[in-house]
Parts: sequence; C-alpha cells; structure tokens
Amino acid sequence: MNGATALINTLANCGVEFCIANPGTSEMHLVQALDAVPRVKSVLALFEGVCTGAADGIGRMTGKPAATLLHLGPGMANGIANLHNARRANSPMINIIGNHPNFHVGHDAPLTSNIDTLAHNFSCWIKSECTADSLAQDGADAYTATLRQSTGSTGQIATLIMGADAAWGDSLGPVEPNAVPQRAKVNESAIDKVASIIEKRGSNTVILLEHHGTEQAAMAAASKISNKYGCKMFNGTFPARVDGGPGRIAIDRLPYFPEQVLGTLNGVENLVLVGGSTPVSFFAYQNSPAELIPEGCEVTRLSYIEEDAIDAMERLADRLGASKQSITTFEKKDISKPNGELNTKTIIQSLAATLPENVIVCTDSGGGNAAYPFCQSTSQNNWLSLTGGAIGQGGPCSVGAALACPDQRVLAMLGDGGAAYTIQALWTQARENLDITTVIFANNSYNILDVEYGRLGVTNVGDIAASLFDIGNPAIDWVSLAKGFGVPGGKADTGEELCALLEKSYGTPGPFIIQANGEIKR
Amino acid sequence: MNGATALINTLANCGVEFCIANPGTSEMHLVQALDAVPRVKSVLALFEGVCTGAADGIGRMTGKPAATLLHLGPGMANGIANLHNARRANSPMINIIGNHPNFHVGHDAPLTSNIDTLAHNFSCWIKSECTADSLAQDGADAYTATLRQSTGSTGQIATLIMGADAAWGDSLGPVEPNAVPQRAKVNESAIDKVASIIEKRGSNTVILLEHHGTEQAAMAAASKISNKYGCKMFNGTFPARVDGGPGRIAIDRLPYFPEQVLGTLNGVENLVLVGGSTPVSFFAYQNSPAELIPEGCEVTRLSYIEEDAIDAMERLADRLGASKQSITTFEKKDISKPNGELNTKTIIQSLAATLPENVIVCTDSGGGNAAYPFCQSTSQNNWLSLTGGAIGQGGPCSVGAALACPDQRVLAMLGDGGAAYTIQALWTQARENLDITTVIFANNSYNILDVEYGRLGVTNVGDIAASLFDIGNPAIDWVSLAKGFGVPGGKADTGEELCALLEKSYGTPGPFIIQANGEIKR
Repeated sequence: MNGATALINTLANCGVEFCIANPGTSEMHLVQALDAVPRVKSVLALFEGVCTGAADGIGRMTGKPAATLLHLGPGMANGIANLHNARRANSPMINIIGNHPNFHVGHDAPLTSNIDTLAHNFSCWIKSECTADSLAQDGADAYTATLRQSTGSTGQIATLIMGADAAWGDSLGPVEPNAVPQRAKVNESAIDKVASIIEKRGSNTVILLEHHGTEQAAMAAASKISNKYGCKMFNGTFPARVDGGPGRIAIDRLPYFPEQVLGTLNGVENLVLVGGSTPVSFFAYQNSPAELIPEGCEVTRLSYIEEDAIDAMERLADRLGASKQSITTFEKKDISKPNGELNTKTIIQSLAATLPENVIVCTDSGGGNAAYPFCQSTSQNNWLSLTGGAIGQGGPCSVGAALACPDQRVLAMLGDGGAAYTIQALWTQARENLDITTVIFANNSYNILDVEYGRLGVTNVGDIAASLFDIGNPAIDWVSLAKGFGVPGGKADTGEELCALLEKSYGTPGPFIIQANGEIKR
Repeated sequence: MNGATALINTLANCGVEFCIANPGTSEMHLVQALDAVPRVKSVLALFEGVCTGAADGIGRMTGKPAATLLHLGPGMANGIANLHNARRANSPMINIIGNHPNFHVGHDAPLTSNIDTLAHNFSCWIKSECTADSLAQDGADAYTATLRQSTGSTGQIATLIMGADAAWGDSLGPVEPNAVPQRAKVNESAIDKVASIIEKRGSNTVILLEHHGTEQAAMAAASKISNKYGCKMFNGTFPARVDGGPGRIAIDRLPYFPEQVLGTLNGVENLVLVGGSTPVSFFAYQNSPAELIPEGCEVTRLSYIEEDAIDAMERLADRLGASKQSITTFEKKDISKPNGELNTKTIIQSLAATLPENVIVCTDSGGGNAAYPFCQSTSQNNWLSLTGGAIGQGGPCSVGAALACPDQRVLAMLGDGGAAYTIQALWTQARENLDITTVIFANNSYNILDVEYGRLGVTNVGDIAASLFDIGNPAIDWVSLAKGFGVPGGKADTGEELCALLEKSYGTPGPFIIQANGEIKR
C-alpha cells in the first residue's frame, strides 16, 4: 500500500468523512487513494476557496475536521481567505497540500514556491518533511491537532504538505487513531472570582459568551445566572455558530461599529469573558479606541478558548445557587410577509417571515447579519457567521453545511460583493444536488465602503471613489450566473415575489438562487 | 497632504499608470487619494486574482509596474496564485496592501493576520513598517525594486504593507523618482567561452533564450549565429512574452513533457543559457530525471536573468562574425478554415485561420499553448504564456493587456478548468469595454489530469477518480456566465460557427466570449 492510500485510510479511521478537492498533477496518487477509499466522500470544487470554505462549514456543523486536497502553493493560496475565516471560527480542518517530491523542489520548477511560509498564516500544525512511512501517522497527528485547543494557537487548522514521493512510495499501511484530546477544566479560583463579582455587581455585569461558550448548555447556565442576578449576556459580533430560534437560549450579539459596542456596554462595571477575548474595534479609526471597554469597567476571565466553557458555566451557576433557576428562550412570533418594493429591511422581513424549521443559515453579508435578530423568533436555526471578515465565505460554507447535514435546508444570505468572490460554489451545489437556497442582497454596491467613506467625514464622494464602491456597472445578473453553473433561480423586486420564491425553493429539493433587488437609493 | 495622497502622486511621478483595485475599509484614505490623482487610472475588479493577473498583463506589455490595491491578508491571499505567475514571468508590479494601523494590529481584530509571511512567497521587496512620512519614498523605492533585476530574486514584485495610520497621517508630500536601474552587461569571458563552443560544436549547440533573451533583438542575433553555424535556438516552454508572427524571428519552444524535451535535445552537445535556467521537468515522475539535459551535454551560461541579453547576444554575434548574416523569420502561410465538428485541433485551426493583425494572445490552457506554432504563420502577435502553472491567469492577464494596449485586440485562449478560477475577469472587461475575445476550450474536463493519471500506468480509471477530473457534471454554460457579468457571447459546435463568431468579435468593439464545444471523446 502506498503512502497516499495509508493516509486516506488513516483519516477515515479517525473519522474524516469528506475530502473537498481541487487536485493537480502532483496529487494523482492521492486521487488514486480517494478512489480506493470511498468511506471518505470526495467532492470536487472549481476553486480552492470553495474547498476551504466548505470544509469550514463541515467543521462548524460536525465538530470534526474535513480534509481538503489542494495543489501546491498557488492552489493553497486560493484557499487562504476562507482558511483565515476558519481559523477565526476555530474550526477543525486538515489541508493536504500536494507538493513536488523533495528531490524535485530544489530544481525550482515553475510551480515551486515556499508553501510553508503561506501555511504559517493560518495553521496551528504544519508538516512538510513527510515520507511514505510517516504519512499515515502524520495524518493521525494532523487529526488530533485540529481538536487540541490551545491559547495563542493560530486556530485549529492542520496543514500536511505532502511530497509526491511520500504519496507514491511504499508504506507500512494505516495507523490507529490517536486518543481524542479533551478540553481542560478551569481552575476553581476562576469560578470563585467570577462568582464573587456577580454576587457583588449583579445587573452591572455582562457575560460575553464566545467560542465554546456559545454552546447551548453554556448559554443555559448563563441564562439562569442572568435571571437570578440581572446581569446581561451577549455573544460576540460574529460567532462561528450559534443555535437559535424559539425554544433556544435567548441572547443578543454585540453590535459592529465601535461606538455601538461602547453604547451597548455603557454603565457596565464588569465584563466576564467566557471562551473569548476583550471586544476590539473591527477596524481602526482616528480618535477611536481599539479596546471597546467603557471607562472603569473591569474585565474578568472565566475561561480561555481551550477550556471547557460548559463545565465552567455550570459550576459557576451551581456556585451562585442558580442551577434551578429558569432559563429564558427566544419566543415564537408571527412575522408578516412584506408587500411592495424591496430594500434591506423588507428583504430581511421576507427571510424571517418564511424561515423554514431547522434551517442552517450561512451569511457573510451586512444584510444577513442584520437579519439575525429578526429570525430568532420564527424557526429554530444554526447560524454560521463570517468570523474573519474575508468575504466570499457564505456560499462555500453553505456547501459544507449541506454536505454535513443532508436533512436540513441551508439558507445562504449573501451580499453581491461577497458572492462574486466565490461564485463557483454554485457549481458544487448543482453537482451534489444540495438543498441550498441562496439569497443575494443585490444592492449593486460595496455598500459598507460607502458607509465607511462617509465616516471619514467625506460628504461629497468624487467620481473615482464612487466608482470603486459601485458594482452596478454593469449590474450583475445573478440568475444568469447561476444558470451557467447549473443552478436554477429567479429574481424578486417585491416582498410578494421574494416570499413566493423562498417558499418555492424550500419546497423543492436541490439548490436555488434568488436575486433580491434592493438597490441602495443615494 | 496625507501619506496616501503623497504615495499615489509619487507613483504617478515614477510612471505608474494603473491601480487595479479591490479596496476595503482599511484602504479608504487610499481610495480618497486615487480620487484626487486621476493620472493613475483606477480599475475595479470583483476578485483580487483579477487585480494581480491584470497587473501582470500590464507589466508584460509595458515593462513598467502597475499598482494593485488589496485589502489586508485575505485580500492579498486571493491574489497570490497570479502573483506566483507574475513572479515566474519576472513582471514588475507594486502591491499596496492595506493594513490596520500598527497600534491596532496587536489587538488581533478579526481581519488581522500575518501579512508579511504571505508576502514572502512572491515578493522581492517588502515594507511593512511605513509611516505617513516614509510612504512616498517607500513608493519610489518599491517602483525601483520592481525594475532592479537580480539573480536569486523571488521576482520583480514589491509589496508595500500600508497601515491605515500611514495613509491618513500628514506627510511631507510626494518625492522625486529614483534613478531607473539599468541591466548589467555580461563579462567578456562569458562571450569568449560561448563563442569558442559554438565555433567548435556548431550544429550540435542549442541556444536557449529566456526572459530578456526573448526580446526580438536578442533573438535576431541568435538567428544570425544559427544561420552561420547551424546551431538550433529555442525559447523555454512557457515564456512570459514573445512577439511572433510573419516578419518576426522564427523560433520554436521546448515542449512540455520531460521525455519530449529530452527527445528535442537528443544529440545536443552544448546548451547555451541566455537569461534563463537549465530545463527541468514541470512535475516529478517516478524514474524520470528532474534536469532535462541529454547525457554528455555540457551547459554553458551566456547571461543571467538580470543581465542584458540583447547586448550579450549582439556581442556574441559580432565575435562570431555573424552580424551581417541574414535572420530567419516566420513566413506567412494561408491556413484554411476548418469545417465540421470541433476538437482541440479544429479549434486551433479556426483560431489560426482567423487571427487578427497585431493581436495580443493570453493563454493559460493546454489548447492555447498548442495553438502557438500554428498561429506564427498568420499574423503578428504578442504571446503571453502561463509562466507559473497556476491556472486562472489568462482572463485576468487579458484585462491588463487590453488596458495597457487599447489599440490592439486581445485574444484569451482559456481552458474551461482555468477560466472557472477567475471568471470575474469578465466583469471588468465589460465595465471597461475592453477589446477582448475570450475563447473557452470547453472540453468539460481537467483533461491534463486524465492524461497524467494515465501516465501513472492506470488504464482503468475508477469512478471516483474519474469524477475528480470531470467538470461536465453539470456542464458549464459559459455564455450564461458571461451574460451574468455583462459580456455578450455565443457557442460554436463546428469550425464554421467558430470562425464566424471569431470574425464577428474581431469586428466589434468591446468584449465577447465564445464557448468552443470540443468535448473529449473517451
């Protein structure tokens, strides 16, 4: 058995179910191995940013790594933007990067480049000197690395740079999986400290739940404490995944702009960090602080990213005598379908009014993010946000979520700017007949830039600057693009049309795209 | 004047004519500067791989750097595949990468990542600690770096990582351009050595002309020597740019597969390197050599990449008494338009038969590369190849070529696999109304992988492996994709249809796409 086949068998033994691939010549033996090991489902994408975004979606929905198969430095480079998002989501993922054999790298053939230097941008684990003998164990170690949480890690992404000679050489066969790492428990002193603060400060405390702290059980404990002591609870602005909707723990998110975050936290005396970090401004502005903590507010940590936030929150609730307290959940409300012209508000209303049960929402747009609070009162959902700010993530992520969860409808709420980055995701949706509804907020604009430009104090935007925010010249025909990639779709100019198309899509297996025309009026 | 405006004015003073941009919030002051300095034409692209590929095209056609404007680490990452190709083409280019201010980077906001580590993959010059005061001089230095040739350099790409505080802070204004670096002349000893080899070995010598050696004047000298001594002359397999067609120096290229290169060089006793390197196998194979030199063949260098190959070749011709010798140029021949079913051969015949005068050809496909020899007998052309093997380069490169040379028709010969990587290039073609004809070799396959898989000795390709080479499920509708991005087009199933569409496109201003349906029969 060659190294490649030993590797893929080992990954299958560990629990890897998918390999999202865009192979090249240097990976032909790995393709042969995927052919021989159908336990790992091979999924082809036309662009590597789709591979890495899809693997991120699988990681968020299953808690287990998917593999990607990418072609040398340039192939990996095409995947980096969504690897950046996956790193910020703390998603487990194993990249297998094909490379020339070691004996060939020194000859500097055209596709040779320094792959390691790229991998350091997003990987917590990199191995590049593998051999046919080491490859199976390297795969098992990569799997473990993606699940081993650690503070200061650059994420949960393992990158195995596999020379073709390691793939084609004779191996000793697959290896047994390593033990699965467990999260560390927080020290009693952290519980003590936070408990005494909440007892003392009560309603002037905010509990900020991020990463492992966004699990329902951790948020349930926070809800009990909140109901007893009156403290507020928030998720971060862009959590990797939060399960919401009626019956799930009610929680708000911190807003986006720095002055809004400071407004939300105004008067707070203590901020308790569960799993995450002190809130910081997404971008820097002149005369605006980086850390978004009101003056005089103390920051106290309950748990680090690698620690067990559920255990910590439940112990904290116990300590505070809140374990028997009731929890507060989102309540079901009827949202009426809007009529007439579409704009961001009526698009969101249409989405909320028609949201199917048990939906997975993927969004990398401002509009999608704004839809979050409106959708929590309609249907249960798993909400996957853009964690790293690199747009072009929602479409690929929806592919992964749909592969991982074939019994759920996936709803991708995409901005037109972001959707154009990784439009190739539609082709894999068609190929795998995935139950994905894509809604494009078609405002023909990098609208956020227009907003940010205004924040500079520029009221009179020049022609050249305006042209750099304007993606409406020419206007993109999203239904035509989708047709090109094999996905049917329709356009909506009114609330009635949008709701009808959404409901049609939810009732029909397979992918569908809806262009929601809500142009910004200037 | 703030740092950003000083920078853009300085770049304009140096000679930068274009900034191909995909900006974000951290680059708002740079957008303001571009608005204020229309001498630098700002061109928007929907994806950063289009920005970098277009800048490469401008560099190849003008010999001067274009600027790109990219948004932090993920934005730059999206451009790396075509930066890799540009590095291999030795193209000058200046990347301006927006970043958080230094005071913000330490707070690890969502879009923060290590940009330097990515830039090391492709840059010959990186500066990341710029200030408002330094930014103008940094721009002048970046310009110079892109034109300063040096052996062992990682290319001619300068990357300026510009914190937002450098952009918005007060500056001292623009600076004067630095002196433009000149190519070094080769030592007399190199001329002596090569001259004596050619005198001794004559027809058993091959002159391999790469990089600066592909200039017409250098090749003219080689042609004179060849005509006197009978030695053969070649370009490398994938030159960045060679000007060809009737009246231009006749020259062949080295073929792609290693056994073909060794066959071509069979019996050669001396290989003379002009500007380039010893030929190596593009990929490594088991039991196949990396260096493609016949046994007993001596390799002698006339000039390194940074040296003046024109001067060296002209001095060599003088030394050999060949300066008055005649040159051999490509001759015009009539190529008939093909009839009936399309396949790679008849698509190429159609392209050659209809090739317009003074065309720029951009190609990143096997089919396009195969078209090269057939097109040299029809019309004068500038032929831009895929230098680094990262597909998705031809479309973006055509954008840059058309921006730089508005009086020439540009013909992009793209494989379907590669075109899908950077299909967003079509939108910028429509927006700028560029005279670009795109031909898609639509064989619905990563055909090269099928070929390479067969070279493993696998005659019976399994279903999963076959599926990973098959991009015909679903088949991509290229005309629909182009319509989505605002570019008109048509489909051709026969030679007659293809020639008619090509001629229609050449006669009509603006972009046009042709899907040439030549499916591989298995």
